[in-house]
Amino acid sequence: MDTLVIIGGDAAGMSAASKVRRVHKDKKIIVFEKSAYTSYSACGIPYFISGLIESIDELVRRSPDEFRNKYNIDVHTEHLVLEVDTNGKRIRVLDKQNNTEFWQPYGQLLIATGGKAYCPKDITGYDAENVFGVTTLKSGINIENFIEDKKPQTAVIVGGGYIGLEMAESLLRRGLEVTLITKGAQVMNTLDPDMGVLVTEALQVLGVTVYLNESLKGFVLEGNTITEVITDKQNLPADMVVFGMGTSPNTAFLEGSGIELGVKGAIKVNAQMQTNIPDVWAAGDCTETLNMVSRQHIHIALGTLANKTGLVAGSSIAGEQAVFPGAVGTAVCKICSYEVARTGLQEKELNKLGIEYAATTVDSLTRANYYPGATKIVVKLLAEKNSGRLLGGQIIGQEGAAKRIDVLATAITHNLTLQNIIDLDLSYAPPFSPVWDPVQTCARKLIKMI
Amino acid sequence: MDTLVIIGGDAAGMSAASKVRRVHKDKKIIVFEKSAYTSYSACGIPYFISGLIESIDELVRRSPDEFRNKYNIDVHTEHLVLEVDTNGKRIRVLDKQNNTEFWQPYGQLLIATGGKAYCPKDITGYDAENVFGVTTLKSGINIENFIEDKKPQTAVIVGGGYIGLEMAESLLRRGLEVTLITKGAQVMNTLDPDMGVLVTEALQVLGVTVYLNESLKGFVLEGNTITEVITDKQNLPADMVVFGMGTSPNTAFLEGSGIELGVKGAIKVNAQMQTNIPDVWAAGDCTETLNMVSRQHIHIALGTLANKTGLVAGSSIAGEQAVFPGAVGTAVCKICSYEVARTGLQEKELNKLGIEYAATTVDSLTRANYYPGATKIVVKLLAEKNSGRLLGGQIIGQEGAAKRIDVLATAITHNLTLQNIIDLDLSYAPPFSPVWDPVQTCARKLIKMI
Repeated sequence: MDTLVIIGGDAAGMSAASKVRRVHKDKKIIVFEKSAYTSYSACGIPYFISGLIESIDELVRRSPDEFRNKYNIDVHTEHLVLEVDTNGKRIRVLDKQNNTEFWQPYGQLLIATGGKAYCPKDITGYDAENVFGVTTLKSGINIENFIEDKKPQTAVIVGGGYIGLEMAESLLRRGLEVTLITKGAQVMNTLDPDMGVLVTEALQVLGVTVYLNESLKGFVLEGNTITEVITDKQNLPADMVVFGMGTSPNTAFLEGSGIELGVKGAIKVNAQMQTNIPDVWAAGDCTETLNMVSRQHIHIALGTLANKTGLVAGSSIAGEQAVFPGAVGTAVCKICSYEVARTGLQEKELNKLGIEYAATTVDSLTRANYYPGATKIVVKLLAEKNSGRLLGGQIIGQEGAAKRIDVLATAITHNLTLQNIIDLDLSYAPPFSPVWDPVQTCARKLIKMI
Repeated sequence: MDTLVIIGGDAAGMSAASKVRRVHKDKKIIVFEKSAYTSYSACGIPYFISGLIESIDELVRRSPDEFRNKYNIDVHTEHLVLEVDTNGKRIRVLDKQNNTEFWQPYGQLLIATGGKAYCPKDITGYDAENVFGVTTLKSGINIENFIEDKKPQTAVIVGGGYIGLEMAESLLRRGLEVTLITKGAQVMNTLDPDMGVLVTEALQVLGVTVYLNESLKGFVLEGNTITEVITDKQNLPADMVVFGMGTSPNTAFLEGSGIELGVKGAIKVNAQMQTNIPDVWAAGDCTETLNMVSRQHIHIALGTLANKTGLVAGSSIAGEQAVFPGAVGTAVCKICSYEVARTGLQEKELNKLGIEYAATTVDSLTRANYYPGATKIVVKLLAEKNSGRLLGGQIIGQEGAAKRIDVLATAITHNLTLQNIIDLDLSYAPPFSPVWDPVQTCARKLIKMI
């Protein structure tokens, strides 16, 4: 049987490896992972920094040794793949510990190299010693060590996405003064501005200083250490800087390989996670994802998709039937007691696609109004005019608010209309919901507008 | 315009009245309500008893005066309807305060008389002064007054349904010793026994004494007061008794009216909530409901359905298009920190219908395993053999567990398969879910069995 070589030992790579091993007990599976860890939850890093999670080891689901000993998967950590030679069916690998290189042949290849925090390489100081991205377990350890050693007082977070917001909470909890700048009119640009403003307000209530419509222009450096962040409007003191400007796929090493790249340099794949080159698959944050609502390819870095696409790639490699249908853009985020969730398309995307839609928001409660702990929840729905088909949903609230997005994600995936949502037999008891679930209350309001 | 007369001023009746008023500003609308209250949440009664809600007034959404003054709806409380004369298009009404009767003509009639706690009228003492049902606000007040006045030490709850369990929590919180008897092999017979046993165990952990497979046979009475409950196995001391043996529709007064009754005496209606008699609608707990999975008519007493069917009846009465498609049997319940939810069909129903199915359960967590507060959640799914179509779901867990049933309810309503559920782009972040949502983990396990 052909040797399966996997580049990248996190969610996508190890989901695939485990799946192939379940089907083929004796197949040779080799994994090269550039860090010291396998199968870890990068999503947990902010909670490690905040102190909610005591040890970084808790974020590791399965260690390299476990994969080697229990699953007979030949994991090589601290091995960085530098080049893929698809003609020769081999990859060039750097053994970082011994600083030696070698060529590894493959029968089947899976690329699961994930993503990295976008950083503005045109700005001097982007790689200063007190600037951090949040994508690998190592980056989490770096941040933790820096905070412990240097006792920073002030942090500037550049970018208002999920990671920026989660890190804002983490650093607040560690007692830092936190400033967040974003070039957008609101934080969290995957929400419409009318919902984003509620998140901005929540951040301010929590004690984060937020500057909107403000761009990073440079850094004031002392040696290799940033002391101030320069924006187009002001200088901000910063003992540390965190980039939360999005994630880029780790695909630079594929240049010249003939493997086709798409949006943002993410690898193009079909529904079986096959690239354009025979015997080469790709999965996880390094790949494009089909948005099932817009039918366009996008780049999303998300643990759920890494697990799903890894499983599909593994099934396909193992010779089974499997299809990854795509995503609808569901995401959720918690900042202290606030919960934020979104799915589907937002207004700017609908406008770009030329889809006629109506949108509205409602204020409701997470529980029956008389039940203790009922808190405000704001739901926004977007639906196609005439047909009433649900196209997007956004939710902001406190405990119990965000997971309601899953009904909307299900509805969008299966082309349900607002009337379908109103008709749903959703669960109700006073500790869980008003008698009309807030998503239904919003659907009832919106259906009158289409 | 014809006068609309509504019998019953709670969720279904007042939803309909409000809807009709929104469409027809000047239509004459008369409501007869047997109690002193309108538009109240009977679901909140256990939380009033427990002390979580301070005043019973908090359970009233809109008072009779509000309906009269703000909505021009002619509400008569303390008026009991004794008879419907569909030939003469009139109803016979008892004014309870003046103890006078009169005939009220109608142009259109809506019957929304709700349900009442089932009580075993063949057992002497069923109407003793320390025995209670939990369906009306008045019954809640009666229980509260009794506890305040008589300081009962022991309570026996007869029946292991939602109301029985919620009342068990309430009475525990009031410091009573609570015993629950049920003739079933487990409490909560809307769950399969393998899930019901988990609820029984949770009750026992909370301090409720549970006797399974045990039937009510009689009472030991002192005057009009029960002192002991006699079962087929033992005598249980009881300072008070609560019936949680289910709900019956309030339809006895329709005898001879020509209005057709179905399951358990619930009123037969079409999708517009029309009865078999022209100009007579019915909605809420007094009506039959179509189970969309089994395609059979059943009787369910639930606030969500009362609101939905009331709205559809109101739309239909107002001349608008509206359809109530039915329900899938979704229900949720909280007992102290435990959450229990169900939807679709259970094993005994599938067996009765002769549907070939597979079922399995998984233990998962409500959050990422490393995130503080992650607790156990047990999910059971039932799916059709061969097709993989989801047929039922049951969930037991703690905070954040139960509302996941809504995705399953949506899936069942729209004929989704296990593969569809696995493919759903559900929300994930460590504070909300493992990377595979527990419902998907269960679907992944079950799909291998079909």
